[in-house]
Amino acid sequence: MRIRSTDELRELLERYLEDLAFTRELGGLSEAMQYALDGGGKRIRPLLCLAVADAHGHDPEAVLPAATALELVHTFSLVHDDLPALDDDDVRRGRASTHVRFGDGVAVIAGDALLAEAFRLALSYPSPGVARELVQATLGMIGGQYLDVIGATADELALSRLKTGRLFEAAVACALEVAGVPEADRRPWKAFAADVGVLFQLVDDILDGDGYAARHGLDEARRAADAAGERAHEHLAEVGVDTSVLAELVGGLATRSS
Amino acid sequence: MRIRSTDELRELLERYLEDLAFTRELGGLSEAMQYALDGGGKRIRPLLCLAVADAHGHDPEAVLPAATALELVHTFSLVHDDLPALDDDDVRRGRASTHVRFGDGVAVIAGDALLAEAFRLALSYPSPGVARELVQATLGMIGGQYLDVIGATADELALSRLKTGRLFEAAVACALEVAGVPEADRRPWKAFAADVGVLFQLVDDILDGDGYAARHGLDEARRAADAAGERAHEHLAEVGVDTSVLAELVGGLATRSS
Repeated sequence: MRIRSTDELRELLERYLEDLAFTRELGGLSEAMQYALDGGGKRIRPLLCLAVADAHGHDPEAVLPAATALELVHTFSLVHDDLPALDDDDVRRGRASTHVRFGDGVAVIAGDALLAEAFRLALSYPSPGVARELVQATLGMIGGQYLDVIGATADELALSRLKTGRLFEAAVACALEVAGVPEADRRPWKAFAADVGVLFQLVDDILDGDGYAARHGLDEARRAADAAGERAHEHLAEVGVDTSVLAELVGGLATRSS
Repeated sequence: MRIRSTDELRELLERYLEDLAFTRELGGLSEAMQYALDGGGKRIRPLLCLAVADAHGHDPEAVLPAATALELVHTFSLVHDDLPALDDDDVRRGRASTHVRFGDGVAVIAGDALLAEAFRLALSYPSPGVARELVQATLGMIGGQYLDVIGATADELALSRLKTGRLFEAAVACALEVAGVPEADRRPWKAFAADVGVLFQLVDDILDGDGYAARHGLDEARRAADAAGERAHEHLAEVGVDTSVLAELVGGLATRSS
């Protein structure tokens, strides 16, 4: 069986996001939600989700609601993080942040609506497994945001394991859930997801010159990132499916420059 | 079978809320969430949920997670509504609002966490029905908040049907779902829930002198509230179970003074 390339998966996802209709009763709020979602993000969490399902021979179309739910949770967290009451970031990916464009009040409830829409999508599956993965990851992520807000940055790895890692782990777990991978076969996948999360955060810190990189220096951060990338590749070698696209995604994360 | 009194149901609920443990990873954020939840609210949505289940002879203990999820969604909406970016209310039920007590940033993410915890509780059931009712109601409610934020108050009834009504309807729907009431028997219950929502909002407007009462006068608002209360009682008469406690709850809503 031929697995889909990253570009093919990305196209599937972007087409789905373009056609995505939010709940009608949200009315004009949808515009602010769409604006936040359209910001040209890397879509790494949903792509990871789609690629894991595709590697198992599971139609990625069936995973699109779960993958999109992950992107909505990520987007919700950015919209709220950017608020003046939190990080107070006026610019996100080269454009005005949602609260700058639509006002603080609309940004608060647009974030709320993105989170609720994520659960609506996750609940479109017959069984509650995907939604349960998503809710646990969301709660862990919010726990990480709280550590950030109160300035408890002493242990960057613990913080990023929550704030970033939990959603990466959910990206893999949701794919395994939809693809019906037995619990017994999930162990290497979980380890893989954890290392991809660490890799992603370390490269973020290196590019921004903060977090782990600011505390331990760029060389040490690069070394830790490379080690996480290597561990991720090792875990991929343990699973008995074609992981070439996933290996490419991990390679892209290690060498990205934005 | 003897059905439980309002006081018995309230005691069950308060005991459950006291013992409620939020997700461990939320850490110190739980304090702000607990503060918001402890504010001495009327608990009308969860009580309605428990009473509907109890009227069907279904153990209300089994409905406590769903009932509590409703209260968490309601509390989340209050925490965010009170923010300076929205209604800017410094006082809620005679105490400092959550953002005044804990800061705006913590209040934003405490609200987020209350919403996510609500879904965690709703997802503790084997099937996704309760969580689906909750997510649709939450999205409708947020749609109502949006109308409020942009000042689209031309049609108070449409606004309150979303902002207040949807969660009342979910309170009844979640009870029917947990109690396993067949779809065919739910029609009068849905009509009942809608009228209770209208009654609640109209009395709120009368007590606050705003919304429908400000626009149409106190007498007209009282007349509309009485009509909604009467319709609610008529719907209760249509169902074949003991609705005496529900009738008492509706009577309490009609005559409440706070």
